[in-house]
Amino acid sequence: MFSTIHLLADATLATEAVTQAVTAEQLQTVSLTTSNVWMLVSTMLVFIMALGFACVEAGFTQAKNTVNILFKNTVDLSVGLISYAWFGFNLMYPGEFNGIFGFAGWGLTPDLSPTYADGAYTYWTDFLFQAMFAATCATIVSGAVAERIKITSYFIFTFFLVGFIYPVLGSWHWGGGWLSQMGFYDFAGSTVVHSVGGWAALAGIIAIGARKGKYVNGKVVDKPGSSVPLAVIGVFLLWFGWFGFNGGSVLSADPQSISLVLVTTTLAAAAGGVGGWIGGYIMFKRYDLGMVLNGILAGLVGITAGADQMSPNEAILIGIVCGIVVVFSAVTMDKFKLDDCVGAVSVHLTCGIIGTLAIGVLGAKAGMDQFVTQLIGIAAYGAVAFTSSLAIFYGLKFTVGVRVSEEHESEGLDSHEHGIRGYTITFDN
Amino acid sequence: MFSTIHLLADATLATEAVTQAVTAEQLQTVSLTTSNVWMLVSTMLVFIMALGFACVEAGFTQAKNTVNILFKNTVDLSVGLISYAWFGFNLMYPGEFNGIFGFAGWGLTPDLSPTYADGAYTYWTDFLFQAMFAATCATIVSGAVAERIKITSYFIFTFFLVGFIYPVLGSWHWGGGWLSQMGFYDFAGSTVVHSVGGWAALAGIIAIGARKGKYVNGKVVDKPGSSVPLAVIGVFLLWFGWFGFNGGSVLSADPQSISLVLVTTTLAAAAGGVGGWIGGYIMFKRYDLGMVLNGILAGLVGITAGADQMSPNEAILIGIVCGIVVVFSAVTMDKFKLDDCVGAVSVHLTCGIIGTLAIGVLGAKAGMDQFVTQLIGIAAYGAVAFTSSLAIFYGLKFTVGVRVSEEHESEGLDSHEHGIRGYTITFDN
Amino acid sequence: MFSTIHLLADATLATEAVTQAVTAEQLQTVSLTTSNVWMLVSTMLVFIMALGFACVEAGFTQAKNTVNILFKNTVDLSVGLISYAWFGFNLMYPGEFNGIFGFAGWGLTPDLSPTYADGAYTYWTDFLFQAMFAATCATIVSGAVAERIKITSYFIFTFFLVGFIYPVLGSWHWGGGWLSQMGFYDFAGSTVVHSVGGWAALAGIIAIGARKGKYVNGKVVDKPGSSVPLAVIGVFLLWFGWFGFNGGSVLSADPQSISLVLVTTTLAAAAGGVGGWIGGYIMFKRYDLGMVLNGILAGLVGITAGADQMSPNEAILIGIVCGIVVVFSAVTMDKFKLDDCVGAVSVHLTCGIIGTLAIGVLGAKAGMDQFVTQLIGIAAYGAVAFTSSLAIFYGLKFTVGVRVSEEHESEGLDSHEHGIRGYTITFDN
Repeated sequence: MFSTIHLLADATLATEAVTQAVTAEQLQTVSLTTSNVWMLVSTMLVFIMALGFACVEAGFTQAKNTVNILFKNTVDLSVGLISYAWFGFNLMYPGEFNGIFGFAGWGLTPDLSPTYADGAYTYWTDFLFQAMFAATCATIVSGAVAERIKITSYFIFTFFLVGFIYPVLGSWHWGGGWLSQMGFYDFAGSTVVHSVGGWAALAGIIAIGARKGKYVNGKVVDKPGSSVPLAVIGVFLLWFGWFGFNGGSVLSADPQSISLVLVTTTLAAAAGGVGGWIGGYIMFKRYDLGMVLNGILAGLVGITAGADQMSPNEAILIGIVCGIVVVFSAVTMDKFKLDDCVGAVSVHLTCGIIGTLAIGVLGAKAGMDQFVTQLIGIAAYGAVAFTSSLAIFYGLKFTVGVRVSEEHESEGLDSHEHGIRGYTITFDN
Repeated sequence: MFSTIHLLADATLATEAVTQAVTAEQLQTVSLTTSNVWMLVSTMLVFIMALGFACVEAGFTQAKNTVNILFKNTVDLSVGLISYAWFGFNLMYPGEFNGIFGFAGWGLTPDLSPTYADGAYTYWTDFLFQAMFAATCATIVSGAVAERIKITSYFIFTFFLVGFIYPVLGSWHWGGGWLSQMGFYDFAGSTVVHSVGGWAALAGIIAIGARKGKYVNGKVVDKPGSSVPLAVIGVFLLWFGWFGFNGGSVLSADPQSISLVLVTTTLAAAAGGVGGWIGGYIMFKRYDLGMVLNGILAGLVGITAGADQMSPNEAILIGIVCGIVVVFSAVTMDKFKLDDCVGAVSVHLTCGIIGTLAIGVLGAKAGMDQFVTQLIGIAAYGAVAFTSSLAIFYGLKFTVGVRVSEEHESEGLDSHEHGIRGYTITFDN
Repeated sequence: MFSTIHLLADATLATEAVTQAVTAEQLQTVSLTTSNVWMLVSTMLVFIMALGFACVEAGFTQAKNTVNILFKNTVDLSVGLISYAWFGFNLMYPGEFNGIFGFAGWGLTPDLSPTYADGAYTYWTDFLFQAMFAATCATIVSGAVAERIKITSYFIFTFFLVGFIYPVLGSWHWGGGWLSQMGFYDFAGSTVVHSVGGWAALAGIIAIGARKGKYVNGKVVDKPGSSVPLAVIGVFLLWFGWFGFNGGSVLSADPQSISLVLVTTTLAAAAGGVGGWIGGYIMFKRYDLGMVLNGILAGLVGITAGADQMSPNEAILIGIVCGIVVVFSAVTMDKFKLDDCVGAVSVHLTCGIIGTLAIGVLGAKAGMDQFVTQLIGIAAYGAVAFTSSLAIFYGLKFTVGVRVSEEHESEGLDSHEHGIRGYTITFDN
């Protein structure tokens, strides 16, 4: 099984041989093994983000729609992983291509032990790490459009987003496409993952419209989520998972890089929480836990583009700015009657943009040229992600429909589409 | 502390020495260190499966019995780990033995730094990884017989299962016993762990009988679980933990093997979710989240026997078959008035058998001989696990009793046996 | 990125060079990479303990104060991490100092790739692992004084605890101060972390007083927590995180040490659960899940001082003693009307002392001299932690106040200070 050990055992571990010198190739095998372990640990952490999103969204939305949002997040992940295996991965990493669109063919390699040029991990690890990223992108949308979207339309949209929009746009930067060639920098996906999800969410909100009774006579009506502890579990799991999201994006176990990335990620999240606390207090004159939680996520999204480029204090600065801005972004959304149930657009799109721009302002790559390049990347991603998402949502709106009936919305999606309640806390028989 | 580094520091890191050649033995120490880290990461992930089971079972059972099911799962784990240290481990890995029953003696080694021949991990790691597996086996039963089993009888049964049945049966394959000698293959325990737990659960269901009011006038009465979010958390944690269950079963950090195993595990789980979605829709004409969740677990159980043998598409096939079959298995159980509160028998036994048989049909070992060998293994494990479990349950039934009083069952086990409620969601003082 | 591989790739991987001998320095780079991965895995696990504490505390306190306790735990972590980066780390590890108080200056190093003498991990890893420990210390207090402490006073206290008391006291042992020089031993912090937090919690309980209606006519009134499943999730996550807390305290990936530490940690936790079961049954004549859960935590706290020194059976002994004692400690606290909402003092202080004393009685360091040294350490930490905490709490009491109004306490902190409920489980619109 374990090639290095067997190599040694077969070839050199005879008694006299243990003192024999080892070769660079043998050392490299061990080195690859270590990096591969780190990449798989990171992969598993990104996986747990799917649970984090499910918890945040179920916690922040009403109890009558709990099963519905959990169903979407669970099936999203399942369908997203399979479609990424069948074509998403080869759309995102097409190898040699024109820089805009390429496709390396259907499915994964038939060779179960493929040789792989990378040097720090295997082909399978590469696929799985990227597949978990793709699954993350879908779950950003589900929370924003919760409580009123038709489930069939939701799944059709998600299929296009995870199967086509996300991987094709991803190929522009991480697949070696035109944006990477012009020097655009997005370390772990403030734009490539989070903004793309955020643009799609914004398109959905516009196409579907606000929940009934959310905006009444110019006032924003509070729709309390089912469980604050569930939302807290979700945010902490997302923070936990983000260690893999950013830490794994080093693409090796290089000690300096992965540990610096975890420090900047941690401090930006912490500062985001403080920012959300401050922002929430300024805005609402109370200790608003929802804003602290979204502030943490905002800080995490913000540091993602430059987690390997920033000093600890720069990370804190990015985090606190994102944590404050996310509060004002959420209030602004409500001003425009853009009803985002969980604040997903403010967290992922607004702070994804801030984080991506920060590359041009702070850290090792700061400079006007870089800033302009970052702007171009943001604009290009935004234009395509938003317009294509809007087109699909409006296409669905005028065909199968994107919205449940008023009756279903009022009574809750759970009893109608799923036949069960999210919570049954009674003690009689 | 850190032997390799000290080795280097003491012996060779004098300034002139850093350019000195290293020996195969030194390289092997580093290699072992890496594999040992992976094995411990896997061990910790298998540990978290205990929480996963606790959440699934508490989520899927009624609120009046929440504390009871959590109590069982928590104490199970505690007692199971200690009994495995005192005798289970040495029953399962007896060293040289007759292939059917062996015992290497009481307790763990007294030497705190034992030398160990394996080459990829330490003695302590080996014990702990296997102990977490044993603890998993017990928790399969608790959900199936929940809401009416007498707690003392439950713990007596669990003690026999984890202390004797599981390790002795485990020795037949993983301990080097007769089934391993005849070529039976079960990579990470579709049969050795999951079927054994499933057979025990089935025996318990038969001996104890259905919950009162579950089957009335030929109809199956729904008993809604307390919290769907809790069940979702449980399933995602089980998926997360399964990365260690299967990934650690490679027994080293071999990059190709562990990454392929994580890919097949992931895709089978995802396909299981899709299968449960389809099966639930066919059967109940609704988006049944419970079936999606059990489908994911079914896919995980199904891939476990051959996670290192299957291609990605074979993994998807196994997952989708298990995900669909688990729905029909659950419905069939209800037809026979076999009341399994959480679907444990359908998930662990039915899909454990499918996954074990799949070794003879798909993947690198496919063939008629292998298929027959797999059947023999399944039959042997089933015969012993089921009859011995049934004997213990009936022995308990005619002595201490296996069932709580009607009054306790009706009013809930929590208020009677535990003195508290699982949820107290009131806002007054 | 990945230095080793690039080193090899650039210098030696030309076809003829792969058979070239590697140097000790190259091997050491790979070895450091592996240890650094383990340390970061441990760091992330300690992080998840913050979620564990949040869940335990929210689960064990009343539903009307759920948001408040979650707010504290979330903000604690955020503020704690930033203050540890700005000064805590350099207070705790001042380098050369007088053994009592030292400070290495403000903030972290400006060099993003600092060279670091340790050999098993990077500077960033060192900081982050220790920062997560510091954050843990704060969350011990929040549960004890929950449901009635004024939130501003709480945060002021926490800032002093995490920013000054904890790091300065930490420097006495782990920073190389006077207690480490006299041979005091506390492997991972039974005293340095848990007792310090426990003493602070005790000081808070004394200064603030019991909740209204807790002790009425000489009887202890039960105040049921909002959610037992939440508390179970918390305890399991703490157990999971403790693998990193203790496993990372080896400060390298040394295979023997880290695997032995995880075995002793696991068995002590399991035995603690059994001890809590027994203690709870003796005391209350029922299967008391709260006591099992606190027993697990008690076992974990108890083994922390000597997780690398004990045999498996010694770990089980420590666990079972702590698990039983924690029950009687909690009852004794109530006798003195010391109202600890979650049993934090009994878990962290009482069992922290037991675990630290156990070093002198069991394991590799047992002996009268060691026992006396352990007593001196416990007394020194206790004297300073308790009196300084008490001084701060009384200082706050006579200035800003430490307690909310009777009305707020009665109606719950959530609706007054946070404007939302922790749970909104209704299904109407």
